[in-house]
Amino acid sequence: RREEMAKSTQLIDNEVFRAYATYTAIVLLKMMLMSLITAYFRITRKAFVNPEDTATFGKGESAKKFLRTDPDVERVRRGHLNDLENIVPFVGIGLLYALSSPELSTALLHFRIFVGARIFHTFAYLIPLPQPGRGLSWAVGYSVTFSMAYRVLKTAWLL
Amino acid sequence: RREEMAKSTQLIDNEVFRAYATYTAIVLLKMMLMSLITAYFRITRKAFVNPEDTATFGKGESAKKFLRTDPDVERVRRGHLNDLENIVPFVGIGLLYALSSPELSTALLHFRIFVGARIFHTFAYLIPLPQPGRGLSWAVGYSVTFSMAYRVLKTAWLL
Amino acid sequence: RREEMAKSTQLIDNEVFRAYATYTAIVLLKMMLMSLITAYFRITRKAFVNPEDTATFGKGESAKKFLRTDPDVERVRRGHLNDLENIVPFVGIGLLYALSSPELSTALLHFRIFVGARIFHTFAYLIPLPQPGRGLSWAVGYSVTFSMAYRVLKTAWLL
Repeated sequence: RREEMAKSTQLIDNEVFRAYATYTAIVLLKMMLMSLITAYFRITRKAFVNPEDTATFGKGESAKKFLRTDPDVERVRRGHLNDLENIVPFVGIGLLYALSSPELSTALLHFRIFVGARIFHTFAYLIPLPQPGRGLSWAVGYSVTFSMAYRVLKTAWLL
Repeated sequence: RREEMAKSTQLIDNEVFRAYATYTAIVLLKMMLMSLITAYFRITRKAFVNPEDTATFGKGESAKKFLRTDPDVERVRRGHLNDLENIVPFVGIGLLYALSSPELSTALLHFRIFVGARIFHTFAYLIPLPQPGRGLSWAVGYSVTFSMAYRVLKTAWLL
Repeated sequence: RREEMAKSTQLIDNEVFRAYATYTAIVLLKMMLMSLITAYFRITRKAFVNPEDTATFGKGESAKKFLRTDPDVERVRRGHLNDLENIVPFVGIGLLYALSSPELSTALLHFRIFVGARIFHTFAYLIPLPQPGRGLSWAVGYSVTFSMAYRVLKTAWLL
């Protein structure tokens, strides 16, 4: 059993996999941060969606007025959903890519550009920056994932 | 090739990885259950969103009245989206965590608390329980994922 | 270090894992395509959600009329969210399944049916096809993921 344990840790000893683990953890933590920002805006803007969430503001009609949508809350939520739509493919395809033995420098380039683009995308969405700032940062992250998928399919292709 | 096959199955022989596999499968099945609950409420409340889904209720105006939102359906959908936002980071970071050779007992503690918190979260959302029940269960799951991410970054850090 | 690198690439040499990598990359690329289709409909239907996205159409009231929802855009977005809800469990459970040493032919059957069902689901949603076309394709993908989860839990069970 000891030997098994030792072998199963090899993946984390591999440098490309360690880089993947580092950037994936960072970008998933960034995505998780969106929940906190949503909660912050819901509380400061007093804009909730569940009746039970407004109970501290009193009962009946007085609390009901806090069941509303707020543009800032909706903006963060759109950013969060965009993260899900783009970070999920990165995490899945990135894992397969990291296991396809790419050069460490090439892999780092992919991971760094993706994570940088997604952090920029969040700022562009929340500030908001004028277009095409947000659109371009989205396209950069999208292209990186596409590039990794190309290598995965080239390496692993078994249909 | 035989030997390759044998080697690739080592991961599932590792106890921490087996625990990860068990709890990940359970919490993903729980998330999938939300689709069935949504479908159940859509059908019993007769609240649909696609015109083609109401065709069995007749044509024209008679079917159109079933194209509406229903509070119960929307509640399940919010629970489902919250699952996506929180279970995706758990699955991604948890995999890296399981490969970072944590103690089995520590890993089990993380996985059990997370999955327990998310199951409680679903009940708190659907019943619904008064706050801060749902909020706390969300925070517990969030903290577990954060704790695993901390270990992943400490172990794998390669920027 | 050389030896470590060599060992970490074994996973991609395993045939079941290669099949998993191929089908996962394909179905994640298919999901990513939904972003492009949404963008296409937003631009051709002139239906945007962020004020900064309509700046090219002029300022003030003239641009404001493009901040609206469009049935085609909303339809693609629902298809995209349904992909997230179903492809995320496939990617997570499928990875664990691929590591549980299934027969290659059985694994290929699971992966092919799932990916085929999700591609059909997208066409059924976007055309749209009359029900139960979309519903059945959803159920087929759901059942495949469920079947893989069953094997994962049978093989890895450690609670």
